[in-house]
Amino acid sequence: VAGLYGERVVESLRSARLTTDLLTFPAGEANKTRQQWLELSDRMFALGCGRDSCVVALGGGVTGDLAGFVAATYMRGVPLIQAPTTLLAMIDASVGGKTGVDTPSGKNLIGAFHPPRAVLADTRLLDTLPDTELRSGLAEAVKHGAILDADYFDWITAHAHAILEREPAHLGQLVSRSVELKARVVAADPLEHGERAILNFGHTVGHALELHAAYGIPHGFAVAAGMLIEAAAGEAAGITAAGTRDRLQETLGRCRVPASAAADPAELLPAMRLDKKARGARARFVLLAQIGRTARTAAGEWTHELPESVVNAALRRVIRDAGVV
Amino acid sequence: VAGLYGERVVESLRSARLTTDLLTFPAGEANKTRQQWLELSDRMFALGCGRDSCVVALGGGVTGDLAGFVAATYMRGVPLIQAPTTLLAMIDASVGGKTGVDTPSGKNLIGAFHPPRAVLADTRLLDTLPDTELRSGLAEAVKHGAILDADYFDWITAHAHAILEREPAHLGQLVSRSVELKARVVAADPLEHGERAILNFGHTVGHALELHAAYGIPHGFAVAAGMLIEAAAGEAAGITAAGTRDRLQETLGRCRVPASAAADPAELLPAMRLDKKARGARARFVLLAQIGRTARTAAGEWTHELPESVVNAALRRVIRDAGVV
Repeated sequence: VAGLYGERVVESLRSARLTTDLLTFPAGEANKTRQQWLELSDRMFALGCGRDSCVVALGGGVTGDLAGFVAATYMRGVPLIQAPTTLLAMIDASVGGKTGVDTPSGKNLIGAFHPPRAVLADTRLLDTLPDTELRSGLAEAVKHGAILDADYFDWITAHAHAILEREPAHLGQLVSRSVELKARVVAADPLEHGERAILNFGHTVGHALELHAAYGIPHGFAVAAGMLIEAAAGEAAGITAAGTRDRLQETLGRCRVPASAAADPAELLPAMRLDKKARGARARFVLLAQIGRTARTAAGEWTHELPESVVNAALRRVIRDAGVV
Repeated sequence: VAGLYGERVVESLRSARLTTDLLTFPAGEANKTRQQWLELSDRMFALGCGRDSCVVALGGGVTGDLAGFVAATYMRGVPLIQAPTTLLAMIDASVGGKTGVDTPSGKNLIGAFHPPRAVLADTRLLDTLPDTELRSGLAEAVKHGAILDADYFDWITAHAHAILEREPAHLGQLVSRSVELKARVVAADPLEHGERAILNFGHTVGHALELHAAYGIPHGFAVAAGMLIEAAAGEAAGITAAGTRDRLQETLGRCRVPASAAADPAELLPAMRLDKKARGARARFVLLAQIGRTARTAAGEWTHELPESVVNAALRRVIRDAGVV
C-alpha cells in the first residue's frame, strides 16, 4: 500500500503544512507483532515525535491494528486517524477502537482500546484491492447481516455479483450499512463488557483456524468457516433455527467466499480456550437465533458455552459436507 | 519484595479460593522494559489466564508500572489491583492510572492509562523499606506540598525527623494527605490534557537526569534535583517567587534527600525535548508561583516553555551551589 498511495498521502499532508514522515513495515499478518510495534515506536522516538503527533494508519486491518496499538501506547496515547485501504478494514477493523498485535499464543491477544479521531474510508481505493481481499472483507459484511439485519443479509445475497464487480454504488452502500451496524453495537458497549461480543460471531472458531494455519489464510475466509461451524453447532444445540447454516453457505457461495477449514478439531480446542471470550479456560461462542438475530442465554448473556462434543461434531460435519480445504 | 511478602499474599488469596500464581521479575528500573512486559504477558498466556483474570501488582513503582502495563494490554485490558510496598509507590505511582515502561529514549515513554480497581497501601510494609527508598518517596511528598498545599509542605518540614524515624502516625498522615492531593488532581484531569501536568513539577529535568544516569539514581533524588533546578529557572524567568528554591532546598535537606545532578547540561537537553510534555520538540516545564501553588502561562496553560539559556544557567548554578554529585 505504501507503494500505491504512501507518497500521495504524505504530499497531501505536507501541502497542508503538516510535518509528515512515512514509516513502513513488511506487509502481512505475520508482522503484526510486538517486535514490529517496538520498532515502529522506536522510529517515532528517533524522529522526535511528541505527544502532539498524530498517527495515520494507511492500509488494511494489519496496519490499522498495529499502527493503532503504536498510537495507543506511544507516550500513553497519541491521536489516531484510520485510513483503511481494504474492504475488511473499512467495515470492520477501523471502526470501534480495537488495536493490538498477535502473539504466538493467538491473534489480537495483546492490545488496547484506542478509538480513532476519524476514519476516512474512500471506496475508490478498493480499485487496487486484490480479489481475494475483497471477498475476505465481504465475509464480515455477511456476518453483519447475519447477526443484526436480515434485510441487509438478503441484499448482499441478491447483489453479490455487482459487489464482486466493484460497482461503485454497491460498494458505497455496503461500506455505509456495515459501518452503521457495527458502530451502533460499539457505541452501546465500547469496551466489550456485553453486547459488543456479538461481533465475534464465527470468530471463536475463526481465530483458532487462523492460528492453526499460522495466519496463512485470509481473515474473512476463516471467519466464514467459523460462521458455518458455529451455526451448525448452534443448530445441533437447539439454539439456532434449523436451516441457518444452509442459508449462510448459500450467501457465502454467491460471494465466492471459500470457508477454509483444514484442521483437526482436537488441535483447535486449545486456541478456543484462550480466546478472549473464554471464561475459566472454557471456550464461548456467539450463536445466532436465526439470520438477522443472535441468541442470548437464559441468564441474558451474549455468549454461550457449548459441550466440546457438539463443537467437534460441527467441525467434522462442516469440513466433510463443504469439502473445504 | 517477592521474598518478603510474595508467599503470604499468594496464601491469602488462595485461602479466599482464588486461583493464584506468583510471577516475579528481577528488581530495578532497568527491568521496566518492553522485553520484560512481553515475557510476563507470555507467562500469563502459558498459565491460560483469560480476560476474567486480575493482576495484583505487589511491589514498588517499577512493579506497579510494569504489571499495570501488562494488565492494560493483556487481551486489551484485565482488572488491576495495586498493592504498593514503597512510600513512592503508595503516594505516587499507584494513584492515577498511569502504567508503562521505559525505552532507550527515555522513561515511561511507552504505556497506557489503566486505573486500578483498588489500591491497598499498608504502611506497615514500610518497615522493611530501605532508608534510601523512604527518602526517595519523601521527595514526591515534598513535591505535593510544593505544588498544591503550603501547609502540608510546612508540616513535612517540621516533622521530617519523625517521618524518617517511621513513626506510624506520621507515615499514615503522610500517605493519606499525599494520596488525597494527588487523587484530587487526577480526578479533575485523568488523561493529562491539562491540570494533571502539574504533578510533573521537577520531572522535566528529573527524567533527563535519570536517563543520563541510566536509571542508576533513585527517582525521588532525581526529582529533587529537578525541582531545585526548575525553581531556579522559574525564579530567573521572573515567574517563581524569589527564595522558593532556598525553601525547597531547606526542606529537602531536612528530609535527607540529596539532589543528585551530575550531568553536563548539554547532554540533558535532548532528553528534555523528548519529554512527554514537549511540543514541537521544545521542552516544557511546570513552574511554581510560590510554595503551594503552580504558575500558569498568560494563555492559561499549565506548562511553560523556557529559553534554553535560562535552563542551562539554572542547571549550572544548582550543581555549583549544592555541590551535588
